[in-house]
Amino acid sequence: MPHSTRTPLGPCYGDISIGLFCHKLQESLLSSASGYSNYRGILNWCVVMLILSNARLFLENLIKYGILVDPIQVISLFLKDPYSWPALCLIICKCLALLFYLWLQGTFGERLGTFLHLINLSTILCLPVATVLFVSSMTPVGAVFALAVYTILFLKLYSYKDVNRWCRDIRQARARTLARSLSFQRFNGSAVQTQVSYPGNLTHRDMYYFIFAPTLCYELNFPRSPRIRKRFLLRRLFEMVFLMQLLVGLIQQWMVPTIQNSMKPFQDMDFSRMIERLLKLAVPNHLIWLIFFYWFFHSSMNFVAELMQFGDREFYRDWWNSETVTYFWANWNIPVHKWCLRHFYKPMLKRGVSKRVAQAAVFLVSAFFHEYLVSVPLKMFRLWAFMGMMVQVPLAWFVGQFLRGNYGNAAVWISLIIGQPIAVLMYVHDYYVLHVQGPSAG
Amino acid sequence: MPHSTRTPLGPCYGDISIGLFCHKLQESLLSSASGYSNYRGILNWCVVMLILSNARLFLENLIKYGILVDPIQVISLFLKDPYSWPALCLIICKCLALLFYLWLQGTFGERLGTFLHLINLSTILCLPVATVLFVSSMTPVGAVFALAVYTILFLKLYSYKDVNRWCRDIRQARARTLARSLSFQRFNGSAVQTQVSYPGNLTHRDMYYFIFAPTLCYELNFPRSPRIRKRFLLRRLFEMVFLMQLLVGLIQQWMVPTIQNSMKPFQDMDFSRMIERLLKLAVPNHLIWLIFFYWFFHSSMNFVAELMQFGDREFYRDWWNSETVTYFWANWNIPVHKWCLRHFYKPMLKRGVSKRVAQAAVFLVSAFFHEYLVSVPLKMFRLWAFMGMMVQVPLAWFVGQFLRGNYGNAAVWISLIIGQPIAVLMYVHDYYVLHVQGPSAG
Repeated sequence: MPHSTRTPLGPCYGDISIGLFCHKLQESLLSSASGYSNYRGILNWCVVMLILSNARLFLENLIKYGILVDPIQVISLFLKDPYSWPALCLIICKCLALLFYLWLQGTFGERLGTFLHLINLSTILCLPVATVLFVSSMTPVGAVFALAVYTILFLKLYSYKDVNRWCRDIRQARARTLARSLSFQRFNGSAVQTQVSYPGNLTHRDMYYFIFAPTLCYELNFPRSPRIRKRFLLRRLFEMVFLMQLLVGLIQQWMVPTIQNSMKPFQDMDFSRMIERLLKLAVPNHLIWLIFFYWFFHSSMNFVAELMQFGDREFYRDWWNSETVTYFWANWNIPVHKWCLRHFYKPMLKRGVSKRVAQAAVFLVSAFFHEYLVSVPLKMFRLWAFMGMMVQVPLAWFVGQFLRGNYGNAAVWISLIIGQPIAVLMYVHDYYVLHVQGPSAG
Repeated sequence: MPHSTRTPLGPCYGDISIGLFCHKLQESLLSSASGYSNYRGILNWCVVMLILSNARLFLENLIKYGILVDPIQVISLFLKDPYSWPALCLIICKCLALLFYLWLQGTFGERLGTFLHLINLSTILCLPVATVLFVSSMTPVGAVFALAVYTILFLKLYSYKDVNRWCRDIRQARARTLARSLSFQRFNGSAVQTQVSYPGNLTHRDMYYFIFAPTLCYELNFPRSPRIRKRFLLRRLFEMVFLMQLLVGLIQQWMVPTIQNSMKPFQDMDFSRMIERLLKLAVPNHLIWLIFFYWFFHSSMNFVAELMQFGDREFYRDWWNSETVTYFWANWNIPVHKWCLRHFYKPMLKRGVSKRVAQAAVFLVSAFFHEYLVSVPLKMFRLWAFMGMMVQVPLAWFVGQFLRGNYGNAAVWISLIIGQPIAVLMYVHDYYVLHVQGPSAG
């Protein structure tokens, strides 16, 4: 057996000689030549680092301020004077508008009906504004709440009117093209399937179901879930209560002191400190927004939907993966997005408006409502919220044009994390200058 | 054509009727029933949040302390007195040990050789200790540097001796079993392939190549890379210089003030503030460690290897994905891991020691060297580093036993991020009490 066919030192001395060779020609993993790309652990690293840094911030905050959470204080936000409840009165008031509304449908001709409809809608938008501006016992938080309810009502009634008009149009078109007997036969046939058709939907029961349902778009026959899942309902209820407490606690403990500390740098226009404060505010603000999102769009809406056996639970889509600003706005708030698409964007396209202009118009209306919900309760007309929404149009263009994939996603996140606290600080600064310092220092 | 086969309002009114249906039965994405699991955007969110929070910390630090970075100060860390360079003298000194070493190999019998070998090795470990403890002009940083060089030398010479002994064993075994003529024929054959074999390796050139090569394990024929890639070399050089500056800057600007601020809570034993300081220190400490890792194990070692055409670039494996503590220790520092495996763990297993005991022994030796590298330069024998390494044994058992997958990975990261600053603070606290405050306050 010749030696030359073996490895240099031969396997017969294996026990010793294996140890002799312990290097081989290879690249480092982080060199681009290695082709290695498994960085699974980095996600865990990010999560651990985030939790640890925020734990520290929380502890620092506790040491600095003590415990500031006070659930009783929350009530005083809604009610300055416990004996006059203007916000609640406003909300009860809306029932009258609703009754008036149902009576409108079909009672008058199309023209007079539309006229009264417009009067009613503008009343819905203007009445709370007047109340907020002229009733001094209204607190900003109570006012935001009342205005939000009225805005939702406005959007719902607009949709209700539109859909009923479409139904009348269809009925007329059918009457023109088909024999009446056939048409009635079909209507009777659908009644067997418990499908309601116009004008069978014009009942109080149907209308109130729509008013309380977690959607802004009216439909004659909403999809219904087969039964109320009790465990699901209880879980959502628990989330609602727990997250509500968490939100209030975070705002009292983290947002309020940070905002108060930000006033001085903003008055002095000390630029580097302003950015530091902005970034400091960005973290709690963003966390609160995320919790609010989950609380409102997942817990609360699912709770209401489960209770009403409302079948369509798509209240949001996967906006967290959005790679363009447009995708974010089209997917984070599905009820509003659906309404805009159905009652504003598509009707505009039908009238020959170009897509670009229609999109800008949607942002314009959205900007109006954002401003409406912020300026009126604070009794300050500064247009920061309006501009914050309008700036999304060039931002969407920029991100869509220049950033792809993960870079686009990161840009959307940055605009969310940084954009919101800028707007918050703007308003708080102006509010502080006006109300706390007195107008002379402004 | 009967109507009943069509959809309720018929496709002939499509333009109007499509708008009538805009809900369908579906679950929310975040409900477990939806089966949705694409949270790709969350990784981007984590990265953006981390960058923004650390940008804020950095800005806060700049506002609070101004710019503390001072490259000149670094030199004074190594040299208190610029005219006496004890650390450098020590390093030059080691050349003598090396020459002595080469002379040892093969000159004496196996027994006397081993005896002299042990004397030389213990000199290598003890000489710098004596220098550091008795030469007062030695700064801690200079001492760590000198001790690290001597430790590396110790490990390399240990490996050199072992491999040469294995070669002698093989030669003797071969001499016993085979005809001399055949054996010599094979040796001549391998010389044609430019493979060196014992005792042809006992040259100054071969030894110095090993001493400067980025590995701790000696091999007669190291794998060699075919050529020096100039672009690769320059990139690594640039990284070395840039990261070195970054490290020094981060330590001066971020670590030193944070540590100084931590002294008071640690003296007062104010528990909540101690944890707050610990977490505050954890972030810069961890970043510095990560940058150091990249600087040393990727940039510097690859630079040296490229320069020497050393082929085996596996200086680390994918420790960032490690799901157990053992995996981390076996993969983050491959030169040391390879040495421990080849010259300590496997020889122990051969002598019949169980795997568990051998593993614990490896940690024990590692703990000794950690303590050696920290205690001697600080002239404090506190055993914190020793205990920090030894605690890895129960930690490894715990993580391996109870945590799997991402939880295990997160546990490894937490132990890294939190464990290191604990040890750092322990030493700094004791050093502060001893040297700054004076021994009476300790």
